[in-house]
Amino acid sequence: MAAFDIADIVQSLQTVRQQWREVQKRSLEPGGRELPAREALADIVGALKGVLFPMRLGPRDLRQESENFYIGHALDFALQGLLAQAKLELQYKARHLPRDDQAIDTRASETVRAFAGALPRIRALLDSDILAAYQGDPAAGSVDEVLLCYPGILVMIHHRIAHELYRLKLPLLARIIAELAHGETGIDIHPGARIGSGFFIDHGTGVVIGETTIIGNHVRIYQAVTLGAKRFPRDADGHLEKGLARHPIVEDDVVIYAGATILGRVTLGRGAVIGGNVWLTHDVAPGASITQALTQSAEAAANAQVRQQQS
Amino acid sequence: MAAFDIADIVQSLQTVRQQWREVQKRSLEPGGRELPAREALADIVGALKGVLFPMRLGPRDLRQESENFYIGHALDFALQGLLAQAKLELQYKARHLPRDDQAIDTRASETVRAFAGALPRIRALLDSDILAAYQGDPAAGSVDEVLLCYPGILVMIHHRIAHELYRLKLPLLARIIAELAHGETGIDIHPGARIGSGFFIDHGTGVVIGETTIIGNHVRIYQAVTLGAKRFPRDADGHLEKGLARHPIVEDDVVIYAGATILGRVTLGRGAVIGGNVWLTHDVAPGASITQALTQSAEAAANAQVRQQQS
Amino acid sequence: MAAFDIADIVQSLQTVRQQWREVQKRSLEPGGRELPAREALADIVGALKGVLFPMRLGPRDLRQESENFYIGHALDFALQGLLAQAKLELQYKARHLPRDDQAIDTRASETVRAFAGALPRIRALLDSDILAAYQGDPAAGSVDEVLLCYPGILVMIHHRIAHELYRLKLPLLARIIAELAHGETGIDIHPGARIGSGFFIDHGTGVVIGETTIIGNHVRIYQAVTLGAKRFPRDADGHLEKGLARHPIVEDDVVIYAGATILGRVTLGRGAVIGGNVWLTHDVAPGASITQALTQSAEAAANAQVRQQQS
Amino acid sequence: MAAFDIADIVQSLQTVRQQWREVQKRSLEPGGRELPAREALADIVGALKGVLFPMRLGPRDLRQESENFYIGHALDFALQGLLAQAKLELQYKARHLPRDDQAIDTRASETVRAFAGALPRIRALLDSDILAAYQGDPAAGSVDEVLLCYPGILVMIHHRIAHELYRLKLPLLARIIAELAHGETGIDIHPGARIGSGFFIDHGTGVVIGETTIIGNHVRIYQAVTLGAKRFPRDADGHLEKGLARHPIVEDDVVIYAGATILGRVTLGRGAVIGGNVWLTHDVAPGASITQALTQSAEAAANAQVRQQQS
Amino acid sequence: MAAFDIADIVQSLQTVRQQWREVQKRSLEPGGRELPAREALADIVGALKGVLFPMRLGPRDLRQESENFYIGHALDFALQGLLAQAKLELQYKARHLPRDDQAIDTRASETVRAFAGALPRIRALLDSDILAAYQGDPAAGSVDEVLLCYPGILVMIHHRIAHELYRLKLPLLARIIAELAHGETGIDIHPGARIGSGFFIDHGTGVVIGETTIIGNHVRIYQAVTLGAKRFPRDADGHLEKGLARHPIVEDDVVIYAGATILGRVTLGRGAVIGGNVWLTHDVAPGASITQALTQSAEAAANAQVRQQQS
Amino acid sequence: MAAFDIADIVQSLQTVRQQWREVQKRSLEPGGRELPAREALADIVGALKGVLFPMRLGPRDLRQESENFYIGHALDFALQGLLAQAKLELQYKARHLPRDDQAIDTRASETVRAFAGALPRIRALLDSDILAAYQGDPAAGSVDEVLLCYPGILVMIHHRIAHELYRLKLPLLARIIAELAHGETGIDIHPGARIGSGFFIDHGTGVVIGETTIIGNHVRIYQAVTLGAKRFPRDADGHLEKGLARHPIVEDDVVIYAGATILGRVTLGRGAVIGGNVWLTHDVAPGASITQALTQSAEAAANAQVRQQQS
Repeated sequence: MAAFDIADIVQSLQTVRQQWREVQKRSLEPGGRELPAREALADIVGALKGVLFPMRLGPRDLRQESENFYIGHALDFALQGLLAQAKLELQYKARHLPRDDQAIDTRASETVRAFAGALPRIRALLDSDILAAYQGDPAAGSVDEVLLCYPGILVMIHHRIAHELYRLKLPLLARIIAELAHGETGIDIHPGARIGSGFFIDHGTGVVIGETTIIGNHVRIYQAVTLGAKRFPRDADGHLEKGLARHPIVEDDVVIYAGATILGRVTLGRGAVIGGNVWLTHDVAPGASITQALTQSAEAAANAQVRQQQS
Repeated sequence: MAAFDIADIVQSLQTVRQQWREVQKRSLEPGGRELPAREALADIVGALKGVLFPMRLGPRDLRQESENFYIGHALDFALQGLLAQAKLELQYKARHLPRDDQAIDTRASETVRAFAGALPRIRALLDSDILAAYQGDPAAGSVDEVLLCYPGILVMIHHRIAHELYRLKLPLLARIIAELAHGETGIDIHPGARIGSGFFIDHGTGVVIGETTIIGNHVRIYQAVTLGAKRFPRDADGHLEKGLARHPIVEDDVVIYAGATILGRVTLGRGAVIGGNVWLTHDVAPGASITQALTQSAEAAANAQVRQQQS
Repeated sequence: MAAFDIADIVQSLQTVRQQWREVQKRSLEPGGRELPAREALADIVGALKGVLFPMRLGPRDLRQESENFYIGHALDFALQGLLAQAKLELQYKARHLPRDDQAIDTRASETVRAFAGALPRIRALLDSDILAAYQGDPAAGSVDEVLLCYPGILVMIHHRIAHELYRLKLPLLARIIAELAHGETGIDIHPGARIGSGFFIDHGTGVVIGETTIIGNHVRIYQAVTLGAKRFPRDADGHLEKGLARHPIVEDDVVIYAGATILGRVTLGRGAVIGGNVWLTHDVAPGASITQALTQSAEAAANAQVRQQQS
Repeated sequence: MAAFDIADIVQSLQTVRQQWREVQKRSLEPGGRELPAREALADIVGALKGVLFPMRLGPRDLRQESENFYIGHALDFALQGLLAQAKLELQYKARHLPRDDQAIDTRASETVRAFAGALPRIRALLDSDILAAYQGDPAAGSVDEVLLCYPGILVMIHHRIAHELYRLKLPLLARIIAELAHGETGIDIHPGARIGSGFFIDHGTGVVIGETTIIGNHVRIYQAVTLGAKRFPRDADGHLEKGLARHPIVEDDVVIYAGATILGRVTLGRGAVIGGNVWLTHDVAPGASITQALTQSAEAAANAQVRQQQS
Repeated sequence: MAAFDIADIVQSLQTVRQQWREVQKRSLEPGGRELPAREALADIVGALKGVLFPMRLGPRDLRQESENFYIGHALDFALQGLLAQAKLELQYKARHLPRDDQAIDTRASETVRAFAGALPRIRALLDSDILAAYQGDPAAGSVDEVLLCYPGILVMIHHRIAHELYRLKLPLLARIIAELAHGETGIDIHPGARIGSGFFIDHGTGVVIGETTIIGNHVRIYQAVTLGAKRFPRDADGHLEKGLARHPIVEDDVVIYAGATILGRVTLGRGAVIGGNVWLTHDVAPGASITQALTQSAEAAANAQVRQQQS
Repeated sequence: MAAFDIADIVQSLQTVRQQWREVQKRSLEPGGRELPAREALADIVGALKGVLFPMRLGPRDLRQESENFYIGHALDFALQGLLAQAKLELQYKARHLPRDDQAIDTRASETVRAFAGALPRIRALLDSDILAAYQGDPAAGSVDEVLLCYPGILVMIHHRIAHELYRLKLPLLARIIAELAHGETGIDIHPGARIGSGFFIDHGTGVVIGETTIIGNHVRIYQAVTLGAKRFPRDADGHLEKGLARHPIVEDDVVIYAGATILGRVTLGRGAVIGGNVWLTHDVAPGASITQALTQSAEAAANAQVRQQQS
């Protein structure tokens, strides 16, 4: 059997890690893992899905007459788990400050309590999203099919949870929860985005919605739509300025078709319709319809160019 | 340790659920889960993959001389599982009618029997897809690599199974199976789409193929291609009309390059070639080559605009 | 209970398999599985992630003072596993040659030894990628958040491992590892692509980077960017020519915004900036800024076309 | 690789099964499994342990303030599971009668409802067993240690559940539950045995307690004690007579030391003490102390026989 | 957090291992595990249980019409697994001889083939055991209950498999399989023991049956019966002589009650009945009944000694 | 579907729990689980087995050249886990005292450090046990077979770990570890028992060794041997006196055959041999051989009683 120089490679890897830790000014004291954990958050979100939609996303053996028992237990599991993860994030954020466990415990408890209080509101918002999908997609057979199948609903369950945590100043937990859905659906919604009720994303793969985006009620978007930033201004020191409002505002009842790219702090007025593949960096008036006019004439031109294929 | 008002939140969540169930006119009788299950279908499709490709996608310990034993057992598992899920879908569909278990049992059995009979044909179609991928991709090293690695093959295994179930009037099972592959590959093929032999999707992320699409033999498409609907007509009551033929017809030997968007009930004639990023809402003649003519001149223009970067 | 004609279907499936195996000139001798296994490679890559980033991607219970013990054991597991998979690939490749187990063992051992030696370099490159992401994304809170959350980092861990295996002539293992990441992130990087240090992919869904692509240092790209081939030349016999340099060269410090499509063996000169949705098939000079000029004027025109919506 | 004549052996095994099924007059109609399942009952008993002792045997993450939520959900799971298993046993018992699903459903529901109503009483009895163990064993550190560690408690949890099911005429479910504990502890209590409160078995391995045994309150027994039958009377046809009272009656406050064997329908009067290894087939008066008198003198004699060892 | 001197302890443990390996003359060359694996054998026996009793111990979803498919596949799994374990045992046994892989492969294949051929006979023997238990225990409700619940049947399934492997000169595999059942049932049957048809062990905990025991047909024994060796003769060098016939011969139709100890190469003649707790080191004539005569009078005496208890 | 009065039963169970908690003077404050966990200790002991015998009980993929890496990592896991469990036991023990986390942390760390230091000694003792089994059992084929198969070795691995923890004043952890082995082997050794080197238990089911037992070097015992207490003295208040020396002292080189019962603080002198089923409550001189003299004559008498069987 082949033998490898395990010890040598272990040594070389240590050297590289050492360099990184020095550059990053990491503490070299011994210790354990101090960061929130993706797997733990996946379990927590899994439990919250059951809490929110017990008969659809809860355990298969659940029966309606014992829903509340299940919900109470799953909720306790989820909140205690969230509390532990919240402490990890808060401790991590305060890692360069003098240690104050009591303050962190208090802060974490208050935050999770506030989060818990938001759950009924989150459920109501998700109900509006499900209805919007059912009413907006001719292929949807029932609201249950929508909840069970649509990636656009899965991503919104994650987003509405993540956004609440983002608002409560736990951006890292929020981000991990968002990326869990991004991985499953190909839809990348930053937890900072503010999204109204009745939001529907159809197909969804490739959608990107940036951190400071604001979306009104009853908005519908399709796959590969980007609501992004146009520029990344830097401060005097050349560092990126963080937290600037740099993504679009989308008012109520707007529809954005597949592949459209909307960049910068522009406003799409109420009821506007943005055609597929459109590239937009300016405001759009309420009720306006933006279509890819020239490209359509380009298509006409292209059609005129038709020539026989040789192969 | 922090305590949370679990009971209060449980109560509030119940109120929200109650509202939803009233709006949705849900039965409030106690009862269990009545919908097909994503996990069960994942297991069933997993078994069917082994049935179709025993030495590649079956259990790792399988040996050629006992293939048929394995297939028989896995097939029995898959069909019994499918029978149970089919009953759930049929019962769900008939939930507002007088209950008739016998009729549903008979219907489910006939459907699953018909599905089982289609499996050899499905395998033969998938063989043609694998060959097409091998012959169409210069990076493909062998047909086995194609079967093991290509997301375009994974999605077609799901699609050919899902489409058969869709044809047999089990659209919800079909949809769940399709979404399982959508989640894994980023390729969203509605189970209603009719697709000929030797179909190859390269890379695939972002592809969307709509419900009434018809695709001929030996068609090849690339990532981010949309075969979609142009409009969603509504009926007199303002509801979306469901089931209308609203997606493209793609004839034999067509190639569609990455990012092309084809919308509406248009026909791409036999052997047509559609260039990347093209936006198409009209028919294309057989043998025609559509390229993004203007955009290319746009690029030329853009090149002329080159200016020195400051940073 | 319904009974199905299991035996008949098993028989029909055997007939179809037989046909395929004859067409593919497969040996019909009894035997077991001879191909590398996706699940085994997933485990191996999982272990290598822990080896490379023990305190972030290793086991949750790990403590800094026993890092090296863990790394040594995980590395041994990963290398022995890789050795077994490497033999499977080499045997498969040589399946039409006279069997020479000794030669394959030697070759596999040398290859895995070389791979192991590359790990410290791979870690250093990945450190540069993480820094690039942190510095390039205003939404990034810390380097740890980047490592834990960003799909662009996940895909680069897979790529840098896969590329090393590709260089060491194990293209099938490399491809499987790349597809594992493609499935999770929607980012499709062929393991053949050569990528410099400090590479950052933001959002990422829909990115495709082809086999012969060469990317310099400090390059940044966004979602849905394609670095693809323009044509697939065929040889005299009509077969695709494999291995030709057919994808772009991207020099240091280039930025490519979302949705841009760069096709063919073109060169994007050092420091060039390629705007979103641009379609490029020509070289770009160093420092040049390509923007979608006409499309922007198209947008202006489109804006002029605004008309009141009826609905 | 070696090949085996799988098909031949499969055929021979079928022949043997056929013979058995003929001898046993088994139906040869196709069908599924009709018997209760060991694994399902293990899960059900696992849930009931949590229901009875939530903070000790329930999930590790449980917190006192959400105990009742957990209990309600686990109870629902356990009762629904028990209902399904009860139907299987009742159908099996009635397998030679005309099929009457409705009667079986009603009977199963009533039985499980009665079982559920007994749970608080079972918990109170188990509390008395735990106290008895704590008070009777000088090595016991706390009641919690007793509940967590003592096989004599584990077996009584199973027994008190199994006995209730036995009383409710589900002897097969009862037996499976008893055997699960027998396997774990080496203590074999037939579910038919009637056992009072405050029962304590120390060490326990090898204890056998027969079907018609009756045990009063505050009885204590040690390892390898047998409360068995003396004879197995046969009826006129030579078959064993089933259901006869054939095992001992043990009155309140009796102590039986290790290895004692008590056979037949004898009565050990209140407060009697039975010495280790005693062999008893007669009644014992209340308050009497039975010791192995002769064996002790045998020991004395043996001591006299001492001779030097050669080895 | 506490830190421990991991490296020091690792070093000390290495020293101890080194000493053992030197004393045991172990090769110090690097290498992997060379011994059969308990877990692998547990899986193999699990599969064989399903092969032997598909509708009772096979997968829960199995249906009678696809029994043979399941059996064929499970058998292939079990035999291939056994082949691998057999090679490990044969290599281990030959570890001090010149390596001859080919001979070991041939030998292992022949052995496993012979084992496979014995399976139908093993099933028929086990059927006789099940019948014997059903007919011999007044508490047995059906043959199915016996198969599902009785530890005496579980241990015989293991024993009849293990004995076949013992006969085929794979004593280590045989022993591991026997110990798996010993752990579950508390019944310790050495795989060397030869046991006729219709063998029934009731309750069983504490039964020990030695390596050279020979048991006829229709024998029944109870818990804590020992069929053991009386002495362990040593050879001229003071080592134990291995393989001598040193355990009892039990002829047809013998019954041995609980706790009886029979030691040495004695013969219990056909139809003999051995009472509980009897200690026997001599032959017993056919038809004889051995009871613990004196002990019973001892009991009488003891009864005479009854005195009032003080406590 | 049947519905059960879940809420009522939950309520009744709460009442019973309440009563218990009041009687037990349990705190009614909300809180989590405060006791050590059986599953956690099972994992810890599993890791320690690998640490002690890496190539036999460690992971199957382990190779000799990376043993130390594995050991270091597994040791760290085991010790950190033990530390957490130790704190739980110490906190539980101090639950009625003012809380002092710091003191408990310090105490737990010191204890675990001391335990870790004992591991090399434990391994050496276990090596002596393995040798003793190999040399004492004519059926043992190799030392490896002994380590892999013999329940007497399994129980000693647990005991030597548990005894160390008992000595270090963690009796509850010790007891749980002992019971894990008791459940698997039917051998019940109290962790308090002091046992010398080269200890061998053959077969083992039913062995009981009490808390204050002292066993010298090279002692051999067989199944169903009891080393127990004769009486349980009570103090003035009628409570059992705990901790008194009440079990036998067994000097070097003693052999005790199956079923022997030795009770009370008696001494079996060096080299004594205790025959099977002997009942002993007095000292035995060094070198003495105790046999069941009278019972043997009883057997002779019994043999004389032989009468023809009627059945």
